[in-house]
Amino acid sequence: MESLDNQIISLCKRAKTASRSLANASAEQKNKVLITMAQMLKDRAEFIQQENQKDITAGREKGLSAAMLDRLTLSDSVIGSMVAGLQEVEALPEPIGKVSDMVRRPNGLMVGRMSVPLGVIGMIYESRPNVTVDAAALCLKAGNAVILRGGSEAIFSNRALAEIQQEALRECGFPQDCIQVIPTTERTAINILLEQEEDIDLIIPRGGEGLIRFVSENSRIPVLKHYKGVCHIFVDKDADLEKAKPIVHNAKVQRPGVCNALEGLLIHQDVAETFLPVMHEILANDGVRLLGCAQSHQIVKAIEVAAEEDWGREFLDLALCVKIVSGYQEAKEYIEKFGSQHTECIMTENYSLAQKFIREIDASAVMVNASTRFNDGGQLGLGTEIGISTTKLHAYGPMGLEELTTRKFVVFGEGQVRC
Amino acid sequence: MESLDNQIISLCKRAKTASRSLANASAEQKNKVLITMAQMLKDRAEFIQQENQKDITAGREKGLSAAMLDRLTLSDSVIGSMVAGLQEVEALPEPIGKVSDMVRRPNGLMVGRMSVPLGVIGMIYESRPNVTVDAAALCLKAGNAVILRGGSEAIFSNRALAEIQQEALRECGFPQDCIQVIPTTERTAINILLEQEEDIDLIIPRGGEGLIRFVSENSRIPVLKHYKGVCHIFVDKDADLEKAKPIVHNAKVQRPGVCNALEGLLIHQDVAETFLPVMHEILANDGVRLLGCAQSHQIVKAIEVAAEEDWGREFLDLALCVKIVSGYQEAKEYIEKFGSQHTECIMTENYSLAQKFIREIDASAVMVNASTRFNDGGQLGLGTEIGISTTKLHAYGPMGLEELTTRKFVVFGEGQVRC
Repeated sequence: MESLDNQIISLCKRAKTASRSLANASAEQKNKVLITMAQMLKDRAEFIQQENQKDITAGREKGLSAAMLDRLTLSDSVIGSMVAGLQEVEALPEPIGKVSDMVRRPNGLMVGRMSVPLGVIGMIYESRPNVTVDAAALCLKAGNAVILRGGSEAIFSNRALAEIQQEALRECGFPQDCIQVIPTTERTAINILLEQEEDIDLIIPRGGEGLIRFVSENSRIPVLKHYKGVCHIFVDKDADLEKAKPIVHNAKVQRPGVCNALEGLLIHQDVAETFLPVMHEILANDGVRLLGCAQSHQIVKAIEVAAEEDWGREFLDLALCVKIVSGYQEAKEYIEKFGSQHTECIMTENYSLAQKFIREIDASAVMVNASTRFNDGGQLGLGTEIGISTTKLHAYGPMGLEELTTRKFVVFGEGQVRC
Repeated sequence: MESLDNQIISLCKRAKTASRSLANASAEQKNKVLITMAQMLKDRAEFIQQENQKDITAGREKGLSAAMLDRLTLSDSVIGSMVAGLQEVEALPEPIGKVSDMVRRPNGLMVGRMSVPLGVIGMIYESRPNVTVDAAALCLKAGNAVILRGGSEAIFSNRALAEIQQEALRECGFPQDCIQVIPTTERTAINILLEQEEDIDLIIPRGGEGLIRFVSENSRIPVLKHYKGVCHIFVDKDADLEKAKPIVHNAKVQRPGVCNALEGLLIHQDVAETFLPVMHEILANDGVRLLGCAQSHQIVKAIEVAAEEDWGREFLDLALCVKIVSGYQEAKEYIEKFGSQHTECIMTENYSLAQKFIREIDASAVMVNASTRFNDGGQLGLGTEIGISTTKLHAYGPMGLEELTTRKFVVFGEGQVRC
């Protein structure tokens, strides 16, 4: 039998070769694949659910939590939303071949920049099999081949989904290696994958901080990632408190387990006594536990005094840090110290301060008077996203189709030589 | 004495802190530093040349070649061109704070993207001390702190230049740690530097392939680089041969030692017998040695038959590979196999083929009827460049000011919450 090393290396080389045929495909050809996939997912739902059942059974035996089993399950409605996702991606504008910034140089050369695919993208993610379909669709639309490595708990589901995707590719005249799933659950497969810098252009890991650190530390290939989302709202003394209440509530409560949920609330000392008791009540009513500085505990006794390690913590739960600050400067320093460059928001009606916050705060999304939950590709207008980056190279914030491309220089000459 | 580890780690942390004050500086403040630097370089030329002399003396003792000593020497004219470089960068448009793609979302949110600095940039380069000034100026203009690690042969010159740059920073009210030179020539300093991923955002190595591979293999920080430039010109059967001759000549002869010089000439078989003898004569007159396929040797006996390892070789010298091909498809496959994704050019008057070449060839710059020597930041309109990238992440091709920035999302709301 082939060694694992050789198996992964050959898989990556095939992806590189396949990426060439995809790079120059027209929007029409790529969209046809997406539509074919959507149809096949519908037609073969029974097969998918049969394979998915194997993962669920194994997961139950392994004692996965109810929440994890739920995320693993490909119900009719989950398959329906995968189909809808494919249709959404199909409807997005074509990202490849766009020429921008074309100018005529003094010597008559016409110089512009053309958007082109990155090449081969490696996705490493945890157990939600819908990523197998969503991520592959975005990569394909952007002209990239993709190598998928989902969580081991979803291996049967992922293989079944890849089988269907590859069938759709073949039916539309593309090499099936444009979309490949790593066929083994062995962890060392990831290490081998992360060394194939000649054949893979970008790695996108999605999952818990542990997975992402592992990928980042072992990769020789560029990695776009965010470790965590420690997002703050600063309620300034000039905030409209009636706007601030629903926004703080929304940012913390609407979906507490995600990276753009609120983890820290900073309140200007001048409004703390008015705002904090009301805000605490609203949040406590929905079961949110508040951990605060000594001063906030003094104002609302029900607020526990936070331990040192609570500041900057990513709760991903109905819990929230509260700190009363003397003003913008202290809020800014707090965010620099404890923020994760994900999403930062100010509530204020003060024009100059709003501008200052937008300009000075370093995060992938900086907001005025809006819920941190809006830092999301769909919400910010990218169509759909493949992940969020808090590193600054290539992409900062949600990554949509454009972030899966790059730009090459195109030069139209008439015989020019350089002096 | 402080350990080398601690010394480098503390230097990087100081750079990170300094970068914050630079990130929000206005164009006016930054330009004042550049102008002050230019003035100080002129005023203190004597001091610079005195320190430079120490490097030259040491270099002579070490037996550096005349060419290397020449590159090391800070003559009046080199200092003059450093001053001019600073003035050029000062005159470039401000890259920070530009908001683009601002749209109003269906819920009323105004969403745009603001250009912001990357943070801290590490430059690792060989012995040309002028890079110490040029690179620092570009980083500063883009709002980034920079850590410079030049070749050990230039350590006295680099320290002297940094001293002047830091004095200019202080005089203009900026922390001097915005520009720092690694004060030691120990090689392990680079390894320590490349591990400071918390404090450095980007590494740009410039120099020979060995240096770049070393940096790339040891870095935990994103690296923008190109290993080499193996550039081709494909002379199609529909080429205007009168245009092709000066372009091939220019691409090979004008400056053979640089990365955008021509290393491989592909000629369509239909024009080979007409074109090759004339082209050979023109090149041979300037001392260019041609290494070719069997067929080209048959046409021009003076062309040596190339060895296997000559194909795809980066000569950086008056030497050139020649291959006769059956047409576009073979030329494309040759470029895919032997090119380095740097610069590729087609000579043709055929409209459809020109469009196809531009679209299909994968290189940082793809050209029609123009010399490969134009793949350069200044020539392509970026103002000036800090390097060229042949990796696709973040930047592909010459990197100017814009490539030293990133974009964050800015969101202006009026109380919106997510449903």
